[in-house]
Amino acid sequence: MISVADARAALLDLVAPLTVETVPLAEAAGRVLAEPVSARRDQPPFAASAMDGYAVNADEVERHAMFKVIGEAAAGHGFQGRVGAGQAVRIFTGAPVPEGASFVVIQEDVDRKGDLITITDAPGDNANIRDRGRDFRAGQTIDAPRLLRPADIALLAAMNIAEVPVRRRPVVALMSTGDELVMPGEIPGPDQIIVSNTFGLKAMFEEHGAHVRVLPIARDTEASLQTAFGLAREADLIVTIGGASVGDHDLVAGVAESLGFERAFYKVAMRPGKPLMAGRFGEGSMVGLPGNPVSAMVCGRVFVVSMIEAMLGLPTKTKPLAQAPLAAPLPANGPRQHYMRAIWRGADVQAFDSQDSSLLSVLAQAEALIVRPPNDPAREAGSLVEYLPL
Amino acid sequence: MISVADARAALLDLVAPLTVETVPLAEAAGRVLAEPVSARRDQPPFAASAMDGYAVNADEVERHAMFKVIGEAAAGHGFQGRVGAGQAVRIFTGAPVPEGASFVVIQEDVDRKGDLITITDAPGDNANIRDRGRDFRAGQTIDAPRLLRPADIALLAAMNIAEVPVRRRPVVALMSTGDELVMPGEIPGPDQIIVSNTFGLKAMFEEHGAHVRVLPIARDTEASLQTAFGLAREADLIVTIGGASVGDHDLVAGVAESLGFERAFYKVAMRPGKPLMAGRFGEGSMVGLPGNPVSAMVCGRVFVVSMIEAMLGLPTKTKPLAQAPLAAPLPANGPRQHYMRAIWRGADVQAFDSQDSSLLSVLAQAEALIVRPPNDPAREAGSLVEYLPL
Repeated sequence: MISVADARAALLDLVAPLTVETVPLAEAAGRVLAEPVSARRDQPPFAASAMDGYAVNADEVERHAMFKVIGEAAAGHGFQGRVGAGQAVRIFTGAPVPEGASFVVIQEDVDRKGDLITITDAPGDNANIRDRGRDFRAGQTIDAPRLLRPADIALLAAMNIAEVPVRRRPVVALMSTGDELVMPGEIPGPDQIIVSNTFGLKAMFEEHGAHVRVLPIARDTEASLQTAFGLAREADLIVTIGGASVGDHDLVAGVAESLGFERAFYKVAMRPGKPLMAGRFGEGSMVGLPGNPVSAMVCGRVFVVSMIEAMLGLPTKTKPLAQAPLAAPLPANGPRQHYMRAIWRGADVQAFDSQDSSLLSVLAQAEALIVRPPNDPAREAGSLVEYLPL
Repeated sequence: MISVADARAALLDLVAPLTVETVPLAEAAGRVLAEPVSARRDQPPFAASAMDGYAVNADEVERHAMFKVIGEAAAGHGFQGRVGAGQAVRIFTGAPVPEGASFVVIQEDVDRKGDLITITDAPGDNANIRDRGRDFRAGQTIDAPRLLRPADIALLAAMNIAEVPVRRRPVVALMSTGDELVMPGEIPGPDQIIVSNTFGLKAMFEEHGAHVRVLPIARDTEASLQTAFGLAREADLIVTIGGASVGDHDLVAGVAESLGFERAFYKVAMRPGKPLMAGRFGEGSMVGLPGNPVSAMVCGRVFVVSMIEAMLGLPTKTKPLAQAPLAAPLPANGPRQHYMRAIWRGADVQAFDSQDSSLLSVLAQAEALIVRPPNDPAREAGSLVEYLPL
């Protein structure tokens, strides 16, 4: 048996960052920036007023000082002249501060009569001016790789970057296998069940940036598997579900090998989980997940999501997991790393009593997976444990 | 000034859950379940083998016991006969357990010669059978409202729910206003800047389930604003950005009122933030956000996301915020609730030195907003503070 970390490393060896494509800014959220991009201008591009008020020379600012208003500067329409001694320009938030002015007296501190203003309150030390380039300078970069979030998108816009170089989304082909499976909406025979992994994994992988193609269910015949694999051409990653163990009815590996799959098995010291099948397949790669619903979802989260992130060019170095106190004690763990379905009790995390890997109803309630290392001793309530959020 | 909580309540009064629509299961991830749905069958639908092995009568299970193999049960293809005394059926994971059998001896514990098997190891107490309905029973419900995550999608599939009743996505029309704005990719004039809020807020609102329509930038003229509002018909929520204060150049409210907007202003005790404009507008509602980039994004997160969640039928009761220790001390807060841009230092949270509300570069680096109540006293490093994740 190999550790989860070693299995993950072996799977990551199968994939590499994909090519770069350019998308419009409005479609860049949730994508991964592939190359550093540089601001095309300073922000603000000029000294800008931070308030509505009057622009004057800072040296003249004091209580009871009077100024003649000689013009107006609005956002988008600066004042073209120069502010001289005893002069003021009416100014609005975001407007360029005119030449000669170095202070904006806020309108609440001013009494205006016709073209004359008088400062009525001590204006304090804040000039209410945002210096040119205070937010960023032309040429300042956003480093790659970076998963682009809403605030990044706003920043890219302000930098005047209308098109963004991002990694192509990995195409993941999902194939559930087994004579016992029918699609949702169909009427199952007496010995059949509804395929669930395909739909759960599709949602999970798409949430992490993949483009998922759902293949037809492959039956337990070579012909059916060949048909399904034939539809998976051009996928960056083929994920099969079920049929990957060494049981008599598990044909998947054999058929895949006849089509060029270079099979490796990894017996991973984890629960839930089973031997993982993995290898290169043509230009892409393939992973065989266990058919057990909870095992498939947990292995999808622990292994396949990491492969998707690697194809997106995101760092693959394992980050330390978050920690939380246990709401209830746990018995000692066995020799396999255990991903326990758990929920929050306030800021504490509590494992469900039933950790049976067939229970989708428990997985759907789970908010986190408590990650217990092999041979972790029994834990008291309040003891800190690591978890993966769900 | 009213509190953030009171402002939020006033905004939530403007919206209500939208209508229900039915989507295919494959498109239901990330949507909000609108009505309870019930499982159409038991899962498993029959007592199913949890392992590959041999199905026998539990009373006959002991080390050295011998059985005659009379048939096979595979997933999707049950054994049709009955297992009698001294008989066994070869069985695979997921197959129905045949009549007369009540125990599955795993294949590793059996020695097989032709049609005869001998139990070679003490099989233990676990029958390796998943009882019918162990995961869920027909009629068992998933309650609404519920934001559907990948594991929910898998569970809905297993329940044979091919179409899912969800709330319609709210249509949010986003209108940036101001003569100083140009779109990314355009060449700004000397007094102009690139519109950034529209793009950042679009990404944020879509992440929370809205369908966002970006309107043309409205100029500081009545005609331009009327054109933009004309394009916002049928939106559930119009969000204007900028032009909403009481400055001389702020025409937005007046034009909106001429088109049926019922304006209310809320002076909210928060930083960053400004007076919020809000009210009903035709069949929908409208919120005016400040034009300052960071203020717009923070008010979008604190107020508009809550309105979107309410339209999606999600609970609007304020949840307690998460808490984390401070990595560095903070001075006393003023009279307004402060949303401080912050990053993680391990498990501790640290506010940026510069909290100026014009700095998108700081917001883009931020991983959390530390939420400080009005008049919060100075805090030591290590002191627990509340935060909103970003």
